[in-house]
Amino acid sequence: MITVEDARALLFDLVETLPVETVPLAEAAGRVLSQDVSATRDQPPFAASSMDGYAVKAAEVELHAMFKLVGESAAGNRFDGVVGPGQAVRIFTGAPVPEGADFVVIQEDVDRKGDLITISDDPGQKTNIRPAGIDFTKGTTISAPRVIRPEDMALMAAMNIPQVPVARKPQIALISTGDELVMPGEVPGPDQIIASNTFGLKALLERKGAHVRILPIARDTASSLETAFGLAKGADLVVTIGGASVGDYDLVSEVSEALGMDRSFYKIRMRPGKPLMAGRMGDAAMVGLPGNPVSAMVCGYLFLVPLVRRMLGLEAILNPFKTAVLTEPLAANGPREHYMRAIVDENGIRACADQDSSLLSVLADANALLMRPPKDPAWPAGAQVQYLLL
Amino acid sequence: MITVEDARALLFDLVETLPVETVPLAEAAGRVLSQDVSATRDQPPFAASSMDGYAVKAAEVELHAMFKLVGESAAGNRFDGVVGPGQAVRIFTGAPVPEGADFVVIQEDVDRKGDLITISDDPGQKTNIRPAGIDFTKGTTISAPRVIRPEDMALMAAMNIPQVPVARKPQIALISTGDELVMPGEVPGPDQIIASNTFGLKALLERKGAHVRILPIARDTASSLETAFGLAKGADLVVTIGGASVGDYDLVSEVSEALGMDRSFYKIRMRPGKPLMAGRMGDAAMVGLPGNPVSAMVCGYLFLVPLVRRMLGLEAILNPFKTAVLTEPLAANGPREHYMRAIVDENGIRACADQDSSLLSVLADANALLMRPPKDPAWPAGAQVQYLLL
Repeated sequence: MITVEDARALLFDLVETLPVETVPLAEAAGRVLSQDVSATRDQPPFAASSMDGYAVKAAEVELHAMFKLVGESAAGNRFDGVVGPGQAVRIFTGAPVPEGADFVVIQEDVDRKGDLITISDDPGQKTNIRPAGIDFTKGTTISAPRVIRPEDMALMAAMNIPQVPVARKPQIALISTGDELVMPGEVPGPDQIIASNTFGLKALLERKGAHVRILPIARDTASSLETAFGLAKGADLVVTIGGASVGDYDLVSEVSEALGMDRSFYKIRMRPGKPLMAGRMGDAAMVGLPGNPVSAMVCGYLFLVPLVRRMLGLEAILNPFKTAVLTEPLAANGPREHYMRAIVDENGIRACADQDSSLLSVLADANALLMRPPKDPAWPAGAQVQYLLL
Repeated sequence: MITVEDARALLFDLVETLPVETVPLAEAAGRVLSQDVSATRDQPPFAASSMDGYAVKAAEVELHAMFKLVGESAAGNRFDGVVGPGQAVRIFTGAPVPEGADFVVIQEDVDRKGDLITISDDPGQKTNIRPAGIDFTKGTTISAPRVIRPEDMALMAAMNIPQVPVARKPQIALISTGDELVMPGEVPGPDQIIASNTFGLKALLERKGAHVRILPIARDTASSLETAFGLAKGADLVVTIGGASVGDYDLVSEVSEALGMDRSFYKIRMRPGKPLMAGRMGDAAMVGLPGNPVSAMVCGYLFLVPLVRRMLGLEAILNPFKTAVLTEPLAANGPREHYMRAIVDENGIRACADQDSSLLSVLADANALLMRPPKDPAWPAGAQVQYLLL
């Protein structure tokens, strides 16, 4: 058995950053920018007024000065002439400042009578002009990699970047194994339960940027599992759930090795989790998760999410652990790293009372995994611990 | 002009929680559960072994006790007989515990020779049996409203809930107005800039659970804006961006009122933001945002996101503000509530240097909005402030 850290390092070697694809800007939100992109223009592309007012020559601006209105500059419709001495142009926020003018007197500081305006209040020193390129200039970059946020979308639009280079979505195939499983909506036999892991894992991994297919449940036979592996073709990552201990033998290991899997490791010294194995199988990485529902989800957070991030080119920004203060004491941990379902809020964190790994209801009540190192001693309330947010 | 808080209260009155719709479980992730759902069965549905081992009678368990193997119980394939005195059944994790047995000796504590097993290590007191219904029982509920997380997906699957009642997605139509605007990918004229607000707002509002349509840009004429409003039909919320101060008049107000808008308020005492107005127009709520890119996005976070949450039935869980400690001093605020672009990390928060509301690049660098009350005094580093996470 290996440690969680060693397992994660070995897993990282199983996948690579996926190739770039180009998507229209409108579809880029939430994707991972995988190459720097550059502004194709200056913003604003011209000196622009930041206020509604009157564009004049700064040298002529003083209290009681009078100007003759010669035109109007609105956003999208500039004044084409030149502002001469003693002249003013009505101007609106965002409009180009006309040639010859270098000051905008705001409308609140002006008295207007027909074509004549008089500065009636101290206009101050501020020109109320935004120079061309003050937001960004042609060539200004947005650096990759990053998950594209709404703010990045607005900025890329303003930069006139209609096509965006993003990491191709990791394609993941999920295979549940077990004669005891039926799909939600089916009527289970007396010995059967409902397949739940695939639904939780699909939601988790798609939220992290993958595209996930749930394959038909594989029965506890070699041929059924082989069929499922066949259906998984084309995936970057194939994940099996359960089947690692079927009767007295390990069906997933046997079948995957017969299909040429090159095993990287087997079993991790952690709770809840083992058995878990991983390797390369053809063009795909393959991970075998335990069938226990809580274990499968915890392994999803600890191992599959980092794999997705690695494939998206995000691994450099990885440190998912946060710290919080215990609001209740914690008993000593055993020899295996333990990820306890926990509830964290502004007051601190507490482990859920029952950590039995079959209890999905406890997982659904939790919002964090409290991380215990091997042989972590008992801690009183107030001690600082590390956790992963669910 | 009204306060941000008053505006938010008035906005809330403009929309209602949307009706429920039912979606297949596989499509429920990230949606808002709008009615409690109940388990249709017990989990586990039978007493189940939590370990690989041998099912026997607890009364017969002691060191060196010997048992005769009479069968096997695997997940999905139970042992149909009854375990009699001196008998044992091979059993695997998750398998039904056979009638007559009430203890599972784990395989590590047993010596096996052919059909005979001997308890070779102290088996302890733990029965290694999970009682039926220990995770949940038929009728156990998941309470609404909640955003459906991966853990909820797994639990609903295990509960055999194939159809999920969720709030219908709010339908939002976004209308940019302005002769100066072209869409990304087009070649702007010398006076023109690229429409960016709609892209940022669409990404933001869809992340929060809405479905958003970007309508064609409305030109600065009444007829163009009327056409856009016509295209918005069917939306729960129509949002205009810009057009509130076109030349010397307010195009959006004029056209929307001519179309029967019942105005709720006009202009909010905040930075960056005004003008902003809201009301009801036919079957839809209508909000007019300022055209300035940063103002539009900030108003999106402050006013549109709460509207989406309200329509999804989530308003009761609303308190988006967090607190952090200033890492740099802050100058006194003016008379308007001010939402400053800021950067927050584990050390604290600092306002970005340039708060000019035209700078999208500063918004894209920020990850928080630092909230300043009207006339908030200057603060030294170390003072506590409130912020909204972007």
